[in-house]
Amino acid sequence: MQHLQQLVIEAIETSQFPETPTNLYDPIRYILTLGGKRVRPVLTLMAAELFGMQEMDEIIPAAKAVEFFHNFSLIHDDLMDKAPLRRGKTTVHEKWDANIAILSGDGLLVKAYEEISKCNPVYLPATLRILSKVAMEVCEGQQLDMDYESRASLSMPEYLEMIRLKTSVLLGGALQLGAILSGANEQQQQLIYDFGENVGLAFQLQDDILDAYGDPDTFGKIVGGDIMINKKTFLLVKLMEVIAEEDVPTMQYLLHSTVESVPTKVEDMLTLYDKYQVREAADELKDIYTQRAFEKMDALDVPNERKEALLLLANNLLVRQQ
Amino acid sequence: MQHLQQLVIEAIETSQFPETPTNLYDPIRYILTLGGKRVRPVLTLMAAELFGMQEMDEIIPAAKAVEFFHNFSLIHDDLMDKAPLRRGKTTVHEKWDANIAILSGDGLLVKAYEEISKCNPVYLPATLRILSKVAMEVCEGQQLDMDYESRASLSMPEYLEMIRLKTSVLLGGALQLGAILSGANEQQQQLIYDFGENVGLAFQLQDDILDAYGDPDTFGKIVGGDIMINKKTFLLVKLMEVIAEEDVPTMQYLLHSTVESVPTKVEDMLTLYDKYQVREAADELKDIYTQRAFEKMDALDVPNERKEALLLLANNLLVRQQ
Repeated sequence: MQHLQQLVIEAIETSQFPETPTNLYDPIRYILTLGGKRVRPVLTLMAAELFGMQEMDEIIPAAKAVEFFHNFSLIHDDLMDKAPLRRGKTTVHEKWDANIAILSGDGLLVKAYEEISKCNPVYLPATLRILSKVAMEVCEGQQLDMDYESRASLSMPEYLEMIRLKTSVLLGGALQLGAILSGANEQQQQLIYDFGENVGLAFQLQDDILDAYGDPDTFGKIVGGDIMINKKTFLLVKLMEVIAEEDVPTMQYLLHSTVESVPTKVEDMLTLYDKYQVREAADELKDIYTQRAFEKMDALDVPNERKEALLLLANNLLVRQQ
Repeated sequence: MQHLQQLVIEAIETSQFPETPTNLYDPIRYILTLGGKRVRPVLTLMAAELFGMQEMDEIIPAAKAVEFFHNFSLIHDDLMDKAPLRRGKTTVHEKWDANIAILSGDGLLVKAYEEISKCNPVYLPATLRILSKVAMEVCEGQQLDMDYESRASLSMPEYLEMIRLKTSVLLGGALQLGAILSGANEQQQQLIYDFGENVGLAFQLQDDILDAYGDPDTFGKIVGGDIMINKKTFLLVKLMEVIAEEDVPTMQYLLHSTVESVPTKVEDMLTLYDKYQVREAADELKDIYTQRAFEKMDALDVPNERKEALLLLANNLLVRQQ
């Protein structure tokens, strides 16, 4: 996997873009060199290896397309969410401005399609179809996320569908692209897609759990950050679903407080989480998604030794220090 | 041509999009029903007919891709330019908000690629290459336009390159897509592309001229509107290029005035335009581009009677009531 990661990093970071207009291309160069683990494009290469493809040169454009698409969505999402930082660095709209973030994001989306069109033309209708399907779903997920922000409550099915669209379909799609380009049939493509989508769902639940219960030394973000801003995570949605009448005023009071006005906001909310065992519910659902992912991998019709790398990656993603 | 226009309008206006999320798909439905002449997608169909294609069903997806792309750029450009109106109706970012304009524009760009991928797969690498090339150029043109807005002056080559990218390449690209899908060879593709790009340049110059000299009864916008806001048109760029030292203070005074502070701003600027014959220079350059367009059409290796419809359209576009 490290070898594939190196391939991807080199391909991404040596991508050439025109010099001018600098306000269009500098933000694209900037976001692509902010680093990150490049998990999504690595998944594309790993899926190709899984299905026996040896020529990684043929898969690299699809991997780049996936990473370009992901970074387009980061630029626009950060702008829409007014986020000041991305991977510890200033976001594009802060470093430049909103218009430049809109346009350089647009450019990067076009570049994603430009990359995918370099792939084996035999598979072009299929790869294009998947890229566009995933792209629309990611847009839908981001729109739902924004819509839900202003709503008082959210049902669990709504929450799960939102995270599926916003974060999980791209993991499935990244894998499916590698499968398509290696000649996998549609049934096999569906299995590897489902593996990715379920890993994505489990990962997102883990992210929700870690934000509330993570080790402050290793988590990387401020523990309790989601609670501070009333972010609708699995934990909060679950709490709202199961909370008894008598505790609703306490919850509402906390949701209408800031850590400035109520310094114990995070601990008090965690007390409610504990009382209603929402963490256990999250762990349980995470395990179900993880189990489902492994079942999909199990059903894949390729030699077991070729599955090892992806299983190891999934394990690494899903068993984080807590 | 009216028959093709009907085909296009019907194809665009009966496009189906998912019901939800409504904040993602309603703006897309809205912008696509604002009307307009649908010149760009009609060009795609006309180019296909020019090269002998009879099956318009095979070309419609490319025509839709062109119109979807154009409308994506309208949503994002209107947001970046803070425009309140588009075709006399409220713009997307005004009717909804900035975030919804960003995301629904993104979605429409993805939908453009979804349409193009429905075309004959034999030509998919070529059609994708042209769509992405044109799309990047339109982004570059918009970025240059924004960059130039804050600059005190602009050279004529800079201005012409900006309008080429922002408005003309899409006319050329729309035609080239129709040519590709009709099996035209690369030399013929280039000729029809060049025809479209030159018609586009001539049309943009005409637009600059009409804004200052058009008939208030037929122009549709306020005559002198560009002058009021110091928009860098061919006329202003040319004036800055040729103006004598002695008239610079007058020009600068007018550029630093509003019609509120100096009610004669438009007439006084027109007096300078007349003194330096910038309108004549614009007419001359418009004629050169028009001539070039006709030469490209002349060089095309198809029966003359098939050229008539496009020549008539170009004539209609370029000989407007003044």
